[in-house]
Amino acid sequence: MSTKLDIQIDGGVTTPKGFLAGSTYAGIKKQSQNALDLSILYSEKSCTTAAVFTTNKIKAAPVILDQNKLEKTRKSRAVVINSGCANACTGEQGMQAAIETSEIVAKKLDISADEVMTASTGVIGVQLPMDKIKAGISKIVLSKEGGKELTRAIMTTDTRPKSIAVTVRSGSTEFTIGGTCKGAGMIHPNMATMLGFLTSDALIDFDFLKSELKKAVDKSFNMVSVDGDTSTNDMVIIMCNGLANNSKITRDSNLANGFRKALQQVCIFLAKRIAQDGEGATRLIEIQVNGALNQKDAKLVARTISNSPLVKTAVHGCDPNWGRIIAAAGRSGAELIQDKADVYIGGMCLFKSGIPQPFNKKEASDLLNQDEVILRVDLNLGKANSTAWGCDLTNEYISINADYTT
Amino acid sequence: MSTKLDIQIDGGVTTPKGFLAGSTYAGIKKQSQNALDLSILYSEKSCTTAAVFTTNKIKAAPVILDQNKLEKTRKSRAVVINSGCANACTGEQGMQAAIETSEIVAKKLDISADEVMTASTGVIGVQLPMDKIKAGISKIVLSKEGGKELTRAIMTTDTRPKSIAVTVRSGSTEFTIGGTCKGAGMIHPNMATMLGFLTSDALIDFDFLKSELKKAVDKSFNMVSVDGDTSTNDMVIIMCNGLANNSKITRDSNLANGFRKALQQVCIFLAKRIAQDGEGATRLIEIQVNGALNQKDAKLVARTISNSPLVKTAVHGCDPNWGRIIAAAGRSGAELIQDKADVYIGGMCLFKSGIPQPFNKKEASDLLNQDEVILRVDLNLGKANSTAWGCDLTNEYISINADYTT
Repeated sequence: MSTKLDIQIDGGVTTPKGFLAGSTYAGIKKQSQNALDLSILYSEKSCTTAAVFTTNKIKAAPVILDQNKLEKTRKSRAVVINSGCANACTGEQGMQAAIETSEIVAKKLDISADEVMTASTGVIGVQLPMDKIKAGISKIVLSKEGGKELTRAIMTTDTRPKSIAVTVRSGSTEFTIGGTCKGAGMIHPNMATMLGFLTSDALIDFDFLKSELKKAVDKSFNMVSVDGDTSTNDMVIIMCNGLANNSKITRDSNLANGFRKALQQVCIFLAKRIAQDGEGATRLIEIQVNGALNQKDAKLVARTISNSPLVKTAVHGCDPNWGRIIAAAGRSGAELIQDKADVYIGGMCLFKSGIPQPFNKKEASDLLNQDEVILRVDLNLGKANSTAWGCDLTNEYISINADYTT
Repeated sequence: MSTKLDIQIDGGVTTPKGFLAGSTYAGIKKQSQNALDLSILYSEKSCTTAAVFTTNKIKAAPVILDQNKLEKTRKSRAVVINSGCANACTGEQGMQAAIETSEIVAKKLDISADEVMTASTGVIGVQLPMDKIKAGISKIVLSKEGGKELTRAIMTTDTRPKSIAVTVRSGSTEFTIGGTCKGAGMIHPNMATMLGFLTSDALIDFDFLKSELKKAVDKSFNMVSVDGDTSTNDMVIIMCNGLANNSKITRDSNLANGFRKALQQVCIFLAKRIAQDGEGATRLIEIQVNGALNQKDAKLVARTISNSPLVKTAVHGCDPNWGRIIAAAGRSGAELIQDKADVYIGGMCLFKSGIPQPFNKKEASDLLNQDEVILRVDLNLGKANSTAWGCDLTNEYISINADYTT
């Protein structure tokens, strides 16, 4: 039976059956930043739920709260999300605020507080304004159309909302995965909080869902701005309510591969939008690494190049300074033999088997003067490949980050 | 017997007895960048020589050549240094160029080519212009006063020459350590080639010298821009010619501690100048980390904070966004317990035992509006301390790096 994937470019978290969302301006963010700052995502039916959280030793209150709840229940029905305040480094008062927020939402929706996840993004070290949160929650109206507003409400320094949905069709079975995220690719996987909310109407086994979410996040969000180096608030959560009425997807079922592909497609699409929306960025940079000894090395090289401020500034200036690319690979910690390595910019080979190749500077510069730039390193040592994404580094990045709280 | 250290702020590599230097403009750099680009540092007597080289898997030809020579001889009498061309990723032709350069210098000075070290800094992937190198070397005139010119000739994006000398006096014994370096503290320990040349007239045991150089580099240059993450060309070399006629310094001699202190003073002074001279930087940032479980953790935290572009931009904007400091510590990989950690900006406590402290934003902002800013994190877990240095991140950094080769 053939499986077909349909991308719905206008889709999002409320595209799968049974999901509703609503947002409001509660006054947590400065009005000028964005007109919305508080959202609820809701499922009509309890969802099998898996999540990936920040590995930062400093964890925001909502992260700790969600982790504790999901460890027990593996279920959720709603997420309440605020932007403008991270509720991180806020001590016991911050934890009480997160708990209270989930209880207010549970009461509003008449569900158990155990099934209400919380997510925050914004400034660290500031307490949640609970009066505004309370008033805001009471104003939120849930609807099928609310997915679009939610993608805007969760933005901080993002310039563009990011969402997508992919529908999988196999015989008479049909299910959809929707997703949205906020995050702006920084010049280092650093403190740019990345929140990802994924929904699906597929009926799915928890263990399979958990391992597939981890895999998809590793190939997507972790190749732009999430990883061991993460913010205090990072999380990606997937809620599956089973309303598609498919036969339950497990590791061995026919639908497993379709679900995996659709999930990775959603995550990679969103991750690339994060890289592209890097603070002040003008170009998306895709780094392709081939022929590494193993997967770990391939990732190390791809990520080290994508994080190099010197590579990022060179791309910004359309300067084909390929030495910065190979030197970043050299310091990545991965196995690399200089005399075997090749470097390409947009398909043009500039360094082959350890020898600089003659090239036309103007042509190479033109290859960098694109909305999407591809840098490629072939290590020629083994069979492992990896792809990472980043953006160019511009003056605008400095301006955005020099006075974030003041 | 008391030991006294005298800092000679005008001193440099030719301050110790028996060292001469000379520089010229050979035409390797663009004239506009700097009027000098080729130097020789020379000792009248063969020197016990130790060095630390880049750990990048991509190593420039001069690095490989020097490493091979020093492994055999542990001696040197001269270094030839060019700026404007890194001679990295230049294959067999580049290696031949480095060998030939050392041979031409050996002939000029009538010494063995085995005792001539080579060092290069500049663009990667471009061959050394050997005709210009030859002509340049023939023009160089060595003198005691030549140390000052050498510090200027080795500069690339540096805005200020960096040199110092420290004299150690103990009874009738007196010896001096001089040093110069080039390097501009980048926003990440990355590809900013760092070259350091240290000279001394002390008579010293090789094994002791080697281990003390490693220690001093770890406390200084490795806390700004040299480390596991290094450029293709990084090196720090120390040459000791013994002309001070002191009793040979070994691990157990009375002079050991004086030598150690002086060497660390020279290296830390130079390292701070590198941080301060970061490309486009306007402020020196000192990061003090106290109470880590162990030395490795202390360094990890200090370096992660000093490398954080978000911390660097916040300091630039005088934004007391202390959350970025503690979150950088949290993702460093070091042991950290949120409820025990404290954060200080210029002596003002903003976060204590996991709780944000009320503070006056204007006063905190003023503490960041200084030429030298001190950020401090007390982990309160153990007894290990570490200090790292960095600079603020400004628009100027982008402009400098966006069109380096074009």
